[in-house]
Amino acid sequence: MYWEKEIETMDREQLTQLQSKRLQATVLQAAKTSYYKKLFDKLHIQPEKISTLKDLQNIPPTTKEDLRSGFPYGFLATPLEQVVRLHSSSGTTGVPTVIYHTAADIDSWSNLVARSLYGVGVRKNDIFQNMMSYGLFTGGLGMHYGAEKIGTLVIPIAAGNSKRQIWFLKNFQTTVTHIIPSYALLLSNLIKSEGLDSSQDLNLKIMLIGAEPHSEETRQRIEELYQSKAFNSYGLSEMNGPGVAFECAYQNGLHVWEDAYILEIVNPKTLEPCPAGELGEMILTTLSRQATPILRYRTKDLAYWIDEPCPCGRTHYRISRIQGRTDDMFIYHGVNIFPIQIDKVLMNNPEVGSNYLIILERKDLRDTMKVEIEIKPELFIGDLPKLERLRERIQAEIRSETLVTPEIILVEPGTLPTTEGKAVRVVDKRQL
Amino acid sequence: MYWEKEIETMDREQLTQLQSKRLQATVLQAAKTSYYKKLFDKLHIQPEKISTLKDLQNIPPTTKEDLRSGFPYGFLATPLEQVVRLHSSSGTTGVPTVIYHTAADIDSWSNLVARSLYGVGVRKNDIFQNMMSYGLFTGGLGMHYGAEKIGTLVIPIAAGNSKRQIWFLKNFQTTVTHIIPSYALLLSNLIKSEGLDSSQDLNLKIMLIGAEPHSEETRQRIEELYQSKAFNSYGLSEMNGPGVAFECAYQNGLHVWEDAYILEIVNPKTLEPCPAGELGEMILTTLSRQATPILRYRTKDLAYWIDEPCPCGRTHYRISRIQGRTDDMFIYHGVNIFPIQIDKVLMNNPEVGSNYLIILERKDLRDTMKVEIEIKPELFIGDLPKLERLRERIQAEIRSETLVTPEIILVEPGTLPTTEGKAVRVVDKRQL
Repeated sequence: MYWEKEIETMDREQLTQLQSKRLQATVLQAAKTSYYKKLFDKLHIQPEKISTLKDLQNIPPTTKEDLRSGFPYGFLATPLEQVVRLHSSSGTTGVPTVIYHTAADIDSWSNLVARSLYGVGVRKNDIFQNMMSYGLFTGGLGMHYGAEKIGTLVIPIAAGNSKRQIWFLKNFQTTVTHIIPSYALLLSNLIKSEGLDSSQDLNLKIMLIGAEPHSEETRQRIEELYQSKAFNSYGLSEMNGPGVAFECAYQNGLHVWEDAYILEIVNPKTLEPCPAGELGEMILTTLSRQATPILRYRTKDLAYWIDEPCPCGRTHYRISRIQGRTDDMFIYHGVNIFPIQIDKVLMNNPEVGSNYLIILERKDLRDTMKVEIEIKPELFIGDLPKLERLRERIQAEIRSETLVTPEIILVEPGTLPTTEGKAVRVVDKRQL
Repeated sequence: MYWEKEIETMDREQLTQLQSKRLQATVLQAAKTSYYKKLFDKLHIQPEKISTLKDLQNIPPTTKEDLRSGFPYGFLATPLEQVVRLHSSSGTTGVPTVIYHTAADIDSWSNLVARSLYGVGVRKNDIFQNMMSYGLFTGGLGMHYGAEKIGTLVIPIAAGNSKRQIWFLKNFQTTVTHIIPSYALLLSNLIKSEGLDSSQDLNLKIMLIGAEPHSEETRQRIEELYQSKAFNSYGLSEMNGPGVAFECAYQNGLHVWEDAYILEIVNPKTLEPCPAGELGEMILTTLSRQATPILRYRTKDLAYWIDEPCPCGRTHYRISRIQGRTDDMFIYHGVNIFPIQIDKVLMNNPEVGSNYLIILERKDLRDTMKVEIEIKPELFIGDLPKLERLRERIQAEIRSETLVTPEIILVEPGTLPTTEGKAVRVVDKRQL
C-alpha cells in the first residue's frame, strides 16, 4: 500500500523537522543562483537563517515572470555539466520557463511519481498506457519514469492518434492509463463508435487524470464510462511535473508530498494564509531539488486545505481538487466564475454528452454568455418539450451554482470542436 | 575515447568467444518463447547445441511477418511482469511489430547508445537537443536514455515545430543534435529564413543522423551547412532501436556492436553470405536481450562488410552506410535503382537545394521517371542557358550512375512537399 511507509506516514512533528532541514539546504542551494543571490542581497536576507515556514514567508514569492526574466541560467544552482535534463513550459510566445534537473533531481522526481502511482494500486504486473505528450511537457516523461521505477510495463504511446490508442487499450488489455480528463470523455465516444464497450471490452482499472482542472462530477462520469477508478493527479513543470500531489485510494482530496514541497495556500491579493476550507492560491517551495531550487512559486492554481486525517494513514496534508486558476476565472456581470463550476453542473446531468463550450461575447456594450452543450445521441432525436425541459433545468442549475443565467444551447453530439490535448472550455471574445 | 575500452577493443578471438557464449544463452532464452519453441520442435533443433555462427545458420530467418504473426506474446521469453517497456513499429495498417524490454534490456540498450555517442565525442558537458519523435518510435527515447547515461544535458524537444527547434538551437547553443538527415537539410533553409547563419549563430559540433538511408554526399552537405560533424547512426526497433551500429570519429563505415548482435550479410535471394564489399541484406541476431530474443532477423536493409581494421582501434567489424532497403529499390525499364544513388548525384551538385522528389508514372503502358529538384534561390533567377546546362549535367550524371535517363525538372526552392519526419523521396504511381 505504501511505496515508502516511513516517509508517507511520518508523524507531523518529524515531518516538520524534515521539512525544516531540507528547507535550510534548499535556501542555501538557492543562494547559489544569480536570481536568489541578488534578491537575498537586496533584502538583506541571510539564507543560513531560514529554516521555518515563518522564515520562508519573509522571502517574496517567485512568479512565472521572474522565471522568464532569469532565462537562461538565472535559476541554475549547479554547474551546467551536472544537469542531465531540462523541461520547459509549452511556450506560447516569448521566452519559455525552463527547469533544469540533475540526475538526482530526476531520480527524486521519479520516486515521487512512483510513490503516487503505487499508492493508488499500480504494480509491476500492470500495463500502463501513457497517453500524455512526451517531450518538453512533463506529463509524459514524468509519469513514464515513475512507472518505470515501479517496474510496470510502460507503453509510451504518447498523445494523439485515438484509433491507435483504442487498438492498444483493447489488444493489450491495458490496466492503467494516464489521460487528460476531457480527452477521456471524448475517447469514450470514439470507443463506442468503434463498436466497443469501454466497460466490457477494455480492462482499465486505474486512470490517472490530470493536466487540467476538472470537477468531481467529471471524475465520476469517467469512472462510470470506463468502469475504472480515476485518480486526480496534480503537478506543474516548475515543480518537476506530476507527483506534487496525488489522491490516495480514498479519493478524498490530494496528499501533497510534504517531504519534497512546502505548500502555502494564500489569498492571492493579500498573500495572507488561508485557513482550511478557504480557497486560495497555492504557493510551492521545492525541498529536494539541486539544479533549480524555487522558493515560494506562485502557481496560480486555486485549492483549499483539508483539515482532517486521512483514513489511508498518510500524514501528508491534503488539498481539495484544483478549483481553477487565478487566470482562468472570468468575470461575467460582475460575478467571478470558474469554468469548473459549470463543469460540475453539466457532468451531473446524465443527459449531457462529452463536450461543451462556454462562449462570452460583447454585444452593444452588453456581455452575453452562452453555453453550448452536446447531449447524448439517443436524446437528440427525442421530443422537443423534453429537450426544452432539460435546457431549462440546466439553466436553473447553473444559475443556482454561479448566480448568473447564461443562454443554454443543446447541440448534436460531435459538433463542438475537439482536441487531443487539453480542452478549450471557455472562449472569451469580449477582449478581441 | 572509449566508453568501454575492454569490450570495444577486445581481440577478435575473445569477441567470438563472447558472442558464442551469449548466443548460447540467447538461443536457450528464445526456446522459452512459443514461436521459437514451435520452430525448434518442428525442425528438430536442439537449442543447447547452438553456439557458433554456423550452428545459427541452421535456424531459418525470422521476418517481420513472423513477428506480426506472433502478436501479442509469441516472442516474449520472460514473464510479462518482468517487462518494463514495449516499443512498436509505427504501424501503418494491421498489427504492429512489438518488442518487449526488461529493465536489464533497457539498461543494456542505453549502454550501447551511450557507447556510440561517447565514441563520437559526446560528453557530459554537451547540450543535446533530441529532435526525434518520443514515444513508441525508438529514435527518441532510445537516444534519450543513452545520452542520459553519459550525463549529457538532454533537451527532449522531440520532433516537429521547426521554429521552436531553431529557438532552442540558438538560445541554448546546442552542441549535439539527433536529427533525420532530410530534415537537417530542410531545417537549414528555415534557419536562413530566420536571418540566422547555421555556421555562425549556432554551436552544433556533433550531429547524429539516422532513421533514413542517405548518401555520403548528403552527409557532407549537412556538415558544410552546419559546420558540424555528422555521424551516421543505425538501428531498428526490432533490434532495440539506435545503437546497433555507429560511426566512430573516422567516419569510414559503421562499427556493428558485435558483443550485442551477430550480423550476417547475405544475398537476399539465396541467403548465401556475401563476401566483404558485396552488397547484401543484413540479418541480425540479438545477443543480450532477455524479453524478446530474436534470431536471424531479416532487416531488409542493404549494406556490405568493410574488411579492414579501423584506425580507431575498435575491433568490432564495420559495415558500409545503408545503401537502401530491399523494399525501397524500384525497377525502372528493367534496371534496379536505389533512391540513394540519385541522392548521391544530386547532393554532389552544389547548385541543388535541400529537397527533391522522384516520380514514377505509367503513361500509355510505358513507364516514365521524373526527378523534380529544388535548386538554390540565387540560381533560380539566373540565366536560362545556365539552368539548361545544369539540367543536362544532372541528367547525364544520373544516367552514368544508374543507367537510366529520367526527365529532370528544376523547381523553385520551397515548392516541393516537406515533412518534419522521414522524407518521402519516391512517389511510385505506377501501381495505383
